[in-house]
Amino acid sequence: MSRTKLLENIKAKKSFLCVGLDTDRSRIPQHFRNEPDAIFAFNKAIIDATAPYAIAFKPNTAFYEAEGIEGWASLQKTIHYIKQQYPDILVIADAKRGDIGNTSASYARAFFDLLGADAITVAPYMGFDSVSPFLAHNDKWTILLAATSNAGSADFQQRADATGHKFYELVVRKACDWAGPDQLMFVVGATKPAELAALRKLAPDYFFLVPGVGAQGGSLAEVADNAMNKSCGVLVNASRSIIYASDGDDFALAAAAEALKLQQEMAVLLNKYGII
Amino acid sequence: MSRTKLLENIKAKKSFLCVGLDTDRSRIPQHFRNEPDAIFAFNKAIIDATAPYAIAFKPNTAFYEAEGIEGWASLQKTIHYIKQQYPDILVIADAKRGDIGNTSASYARAFFDLLGADAITVAPYMGFDSVSPFLAHNDKWTILLAATSNAGSADFQQRADATGHKFYELVVRKACDWAGPDQLMFVVGATKPAELAALRKLAPDYFFLVPGVGAQGGSLAEVADNAMNKSCGVLVNASRSIIYASDGDDFALAAAAEALKLQQEMAVLLNKYGII
Repeated sequence: MSRTKLLENIKAKKSFLCVGLDTDRSRIPQHFRNEPDAIFAFNKAIIDATAPYAIAFKPNTAFYEAEGIEGWASLQKTIHYIKQQYPDILVIADAKRGDIGNTSASYARAFFDLLGADAITVAPYMGFDSVSPFLAHNDKWTILLAATSNAGSADFQQRADATGHKFYELVVRKACDWAGPDQLMFVVGATKPAELAALRKLAPDYFFLVPGVGAQGGSLAEVADNAMNKSCGVLVNASRSIIYASDGDDFALAAAAEALKLQQEMAVLLNKYGII
Repeated sequence: MSRTKLLENIKAKKSFLCVGLDTDRSRIPQHFRNEPDAIFAFNKAIIDATAPYAIAFKPNTAFYEAEGIEGWASLQKTIHYIKQQYPDILVIADAKRGDIGNTSASYARAFFDLLGADAITVAPYMGFDSVSPFLAHNDKWTILLAATSNAGSADFQQRADATGHKFYELVVRKACDWAGPDQLMFVVGATKPAELAALRKLAPDYFFLVPGVGAQGGSLAEVADNAMNKSCGVLVNASRSIIYASDGDDFALAAAAEALKLQQEMAVLLNKYGII
C-alpha cells in the first residue's frame, strides 16, 4: 500500500489506529475454545468489530508461533481474511526479524509473498545487509525498531555513542540513507515523548509505528504533539486494551467501543494538526 | 542439556561442530522434490550423515517459514527427529527473536516447550526484559547476538559508546550480569578474530556460537586461537559448506566428508589446547 493511499485512508476514517492482534488462547472468551480454529474465530470477530476505526492490523507472530503449526495456519487465515474483506487496511506482521542477507531474504518471502502482509517489523542490530532484503520488496513496508516502549530500551538503545548520539538515533540516521519514507517506517514507543520529538526532527517525513498507548500507559495527545507531521506520520497501536476489553460475550462490542474511543480522540488530533 | 554434558559430548566426539540446517528447497537434490516433505527428507539424510561429527544442529527458522505451514511442520519434524535419534546432540533454533516481555515469553514457549529445542538465538536490541523470558527457562540455552559475522555488523555493533566500548561489548558486559555460563551463550562471528579475543576476555567462561567458518570465509584455527577456553567454549557452525557440499546423489556422503574434515581439524585444536 502506497504512502498516498495510507494517508487517504487516515483522512477517510479520521483515524491512525493500528489494532494489535496479540491473540493469546488463554485470554479469549470461553465459548471460542471449542471452535476448530479458536484463534482465527476470535480474530475474525475482533477484525469485523474494529475495522471501521482501524487503518492497520498488526498480528504479533509470537502468539501464533506459540500455537505451533495450527498457529501458523491461524496467522495465515487472519492475514488473508483482512486482505479479502478489508483490502484498504494495512497488515503489519510484527515479527521483529533480522538475519544475514540470504536469511533475511527468506523471511521477506515468508511474510510478504507467502503470508501476504503489507509490512513487517525488523530488528536493526545486524545492520544494513540484514535490512536490505526487506527493502528490496519496494512495494512493501519495512518497519525498523528504533526506540521501543519497554523498560529494556534503556539497556542499549538509549546509550550514547562517542559523539553523544543515542543508539536509536544512529539507527534512524543510518536507515534514512537506506530507504525513503515511501517504504520505511520506524517503531518509536509512546512512553518516551522526548524520543518521539528527537526522532521526528531526524526523520521528518517518515511514518512512526507507535506502540505503548493503552496497556503500557502512553498518551495519545503526547504522541501527536511530539510526532505528528503534515501527512499524519504516526500509526498508533493498541493491542490488549482493545482485544481484551471484555472477556465476556460482549468482547467484540467492547473492543469496538475501545477502538471507537481512540478513533474519536484521533479525529480531534488530526483536526488540531490540520490533516483533516 | 547442561554445560557439563555438552563438554562431555565435545570430548567424546572430539568435535565442537554445529551443522546449520539452512535448508532451501531450491538447493536440495532433484530427487527429493517429489517427496511429500522434501525439506524434512533432506534434513534427515543430512542429520544421519553428519551426526557422528556434530555436537549441535542449528535449523534457521527463516528457511522453514519461507515454506509456510508445511515449513513449520518440517521444522517440528526435524527437531523431533534429532531429539529422538540423537538425544545427546544440542538443537539450536536459530530464530533471532526478541520482543517485549509477554511476547518473548510466547516465543520461549514456542521454541522450548512446543518445538522442543534446547537453545534459541535472541536479538539483544530491546534489552533485559526482552531476553529474560528466555532465561526463565533455566534448563535451556539462550544464545544472544553479540558480534555477528556479516558486513552490516559495522553499522551498529561496532560503534563505540562515550566510554570507548563497542556496542557488542556493552551487550556482553550487561548480559553477563543477567545469567551465567550455564544457560547463556553469545554469537560471535568467525570473521572477526579481534572481536573473538576481546569478548573472550569479557566473558571468559561462556560458550560462543561462532558462525562464519566455511561459506563466509572464517578460519577454524583463528577461532580456536582467539576464543577457546579450558571448557572448549566455542561451538563453530557451518551450514552451506556442509549441507550443499554436493547437489548430486552423493550429497549426504559429501556432507559427511565436509563434516569429518572439520571434525578432524577440531580434534587437533582440542588437543592443542589441552581439552582432550
